[in-house]
Amino acid sequence: MKKGSHKYVRRAVKVDYAQHVILQHIRPLSSEYASIDSCLNRRISESLLSKECMPHFRRSGLDGYAVWSEEAGSASTQNKACLRVIDEVPAGSVSSLQVVPGTAIRVMTGSAVPEGADAVVMFEQTDELQLDGQDCIRLKHKVEYGQNIANPGDEVEAGQLLMGAGTRVGPGQMALLASLGYEQVPVYRRPIVGILTTGSELIAVGEPLQPGKIRNSNAYMLAAQVQQYGGLVEHLGTVSDDIDQVVSTIHAAVQNCDMLIVSGGVSVGDYDVMAQFFAAMSGSEAELLFNKVAMRPGCPTSAAVINKKLVFGLSGNPGACFVGFELFARPALLAMQGIDSLAQSPIKATITTDYKKGCPHDRYVRGRMTISQQQVTASVLEKNSSSMLVSIQEANCLILIPSGSTGISAGEVVALITLPYETTPY
Amino acid sequence: MKKGSHKYVRRAVKVDYAQHVILQHIRPLSSEYASIDSCLNRRISESLLSKECMPHFRRSGLDGYAVWSEEAGSASTQNKACLRVIDEVPAGSVSSLQVVPGTAIRVMTGSAVPEGADAVVMFEQTDELQLDGQDCIRLKHKVEYGQNIANPGDEVEAGQLLMGAGTRVGPGQMALLASLGYEQVPVYRRPIVGILTTGSELIAVGEPLQPGKIRNSNAYMLAAQVQQYGGLVEHLGTVSDDIDQVVSTIHAAVQNCDMLIVSGGVSVGDYDVMAQFFAAMSGSEAELLFNKVAMRPGCPTSAAVINKKLVFGLSGNPGACFVGFELFARPALLAMQGIDSLAQSPIKATITTDYKKGCPHDRYVRGRMTISQQQVTASVLEKNSSSMLVSIQEANCLILIPSGSTGISAGEVVALITLPYETTPY
Repeated sequence: MKKGSHKYVRRAVKVDYAQHVILQHIRPLSSEYASIDSCLNRRISESLLSKECMPHFRRSGLDGYAVWSEEAGSASTQNKACLRVIDEVPAGSVSSLQVVPGTAIRVMTGSAVPEGADAVVMFEQTDELQLDGQDCIRLKHKVEYGQNIANPGDEVEAGQLLMGAGTRVGPGQMALLASLGYEQVPVYRRPIVGILTTGSELIAVGEPLQPGKIRNSNAYMLAAQVQQYGGLVEHLGTVSDDIDQVVSTIHAAVQNCDMLIVSGGVSVGDYDVMAQFFAAMSGSEAELLFNKVAMRPGCPTSAAVINKKLVFGLSGNPGACFVGFELFARPALLAMQGIDSLAQSPIKATITTDYKKGCPHDRYVRGRMTISQQQVTASVLEKNSSSMLVSIQEANCLILIPSGSTGISAGEVVALITLPYETTPY
Repeated sequence: MKKGSHKYVRRAVKVDYAQHVILQHIRPLSSEYASIDSCLNRRISESLLSKECMPHFRRSGLDGYAVWSEEAGSASTQNKACLRVIDEVPAGSVSSLQVVPGTAIRVMTGSAVPEGADAVVMFEQTDELQLDGQDCIRLKHKVEYGQNIANPGDEVEAGQLLMGAGTRVGPGQMALLASLGYEQVPVYRRPIVGILTTGSELIAVGEPLQPGKIRNSNAYMLAAQVQQYGGLVEHLGTVSDDIDQVVSTIHAAVQNCDMLIVSGGVSVGDYDVMAQFFAAMSGSEAELLFNKVAMRPGCPTSAAVINKKLVFGLSGNPGACFVGFELFARPALLAMQGIDSLAQSPIKATITTDYKKGCPHDRYVRGRMTISQQQVTASVLEKNSSSMLVSIQEANCLILIPSGSTGISAGEVVALITLPYETTPY
């Protein structure tokens, strides 16, 4: 390997430019049907319009008596209407009778309200009695037309948008999908993301320490990040700093994966094979998008399109690797599943810690957002350097420290990129 | 079934009392080892103390030259020290040489810093030259003792607490676990939660609509909630409003499950079999905790301990079922995995919508929390009634509307229970 490979000319692009270029190369994944039993956390792949209305029948809101309000309307403690109870309707059943003047039908929460009735009176607002061996009720209060009845379409109208493409299925979506008969749910195919780590210094998690070696943490961290954003991980293992092995592994991987993330080897060191790889890339099927970004950490973060697949070269430094993923791979993964995450305005917070380190480039530091007394604040976590990973577990946001000679002071307003990971027990 | 079963005497308890009683009956789950490949989102079952320090060797922070700062300290553009480069150390390797006066060793980011050196100078701050056929460098700037070197334990000291019991494993935890050699990770066994839905009105998701029937949505919603809090779902199906079938299903389920959630049948209707079940429960292995809670929705929410397992009776109304789960089953599930979620102070927000419906009991309405201009606000969602589910998918919090005759007005401060589900694309 030639020394001085760090002299490659690399032109830094801005973060937002890099993100924009990435999104231009996204092709949404195809759609597939998932059983409702297995679609939790998947992303809906098309706008779903309800084929039915909900409720689809006049539904009683409580346990009581279905009555005709016009007759019962005058009921008061002074002038109690006495109504014969002519039927009862458990939830799930339908009465064959209809409420006519002088009658009531006993209904349950969720029952179909019988024909002729236009109000339901709760048990507690009636006196139940027997008259000539017949169940009767007296109403204690005035009855309003329509009271305690949900009408067809009150909750969801036929043709209404239920959820848009890109919606992630959680408990509320599940309830809605089940109610409206979606036994099979159209979702985006999950993106298959290859993860490759490079570096002769890496040893496996199960190995004992050796001088100069470190255990491979990026593969596990990246796998967790990929999964949290809906991807399926294909572990491609670790390759040492050998350019031929890197090239062949990447070219094989882009055949099977929808996206490829490589950590390590992107900087200016003598053995930085990914830097070589991106610099030497050629062929009509390969396009370098950028190989330097004006930011800290992760300045040498690189991206290319090979065989129409995005290939990210992230720093091997875990702090920088984490940030590079969140800034670039995350919006790509989400865009493949129908979400333009960059269209959202960032959350702003008042920073509570000084960060007086000037930098010619924007800096993304790991932070902790807190909500207290209706205010949002954020603080910069300790152990935040590019090579450190211990603070990642505490971070629930990245704080943008804008470029400049002075850093920022406590009390200033900063933009945050929130992280979806739970960082506090709830 | 005897009419008037709704006359059971049921004494309402306060929400916080009900939660307290539930937590008193929690037994934490046993611990097991999960492979690091399969522990994402699991909960750590013991405090993990680092057995190693990190880094475990003096590590170079960048690509450059390891030097002896005392000698190089005076370097300036006027008086350039010229150092012979006697070795190079790729990351992962260790030099057999040591830096002595007049020498330097080329190192890479992450390399072990050779003995004798106490500073690393980045490439860009050196001039590389050849002197008598020998690689040499001149330093352009002053060198500080210790610069660009991470010392053993700088990031993590041996014996340091890495993460406490109950911590959920996300990307940051993964990175830390991998770095410190946790090939097997001690985690709580996942709680097995039986879900049983009752009601003769329920039909399966795949069935066409029938008069008076509705599709079973609670089973899917509850399954999603259980999974989001780390539980494994055991679907126990649907039983009609038949007390004998309910009793036998529950008694079988508490043998295999760690917790049981039953939806429907808890109210005062004629066919409310769960109300009957809780009222008639007997035996030394069965204890009713409460069968009425002073709250809306979900007033008839019930809980018992049977065979040492918590059995929840939640409303069949989906809105109330959802709230009942979040208020009572969620803290129980988390407590079984080492988390006292109720010890957290609730988030407070300024409410932006009037909610002028008075109620003698606290009310938990589905809401949407928003962060804008460093302020936290919340609004009450439309279609919020107990029987409605369509708003659940939009909700990212429950808003507590305190009991009282007037409700609350926009601008007042309310307490929120946040929901962990993504409700906006990020």
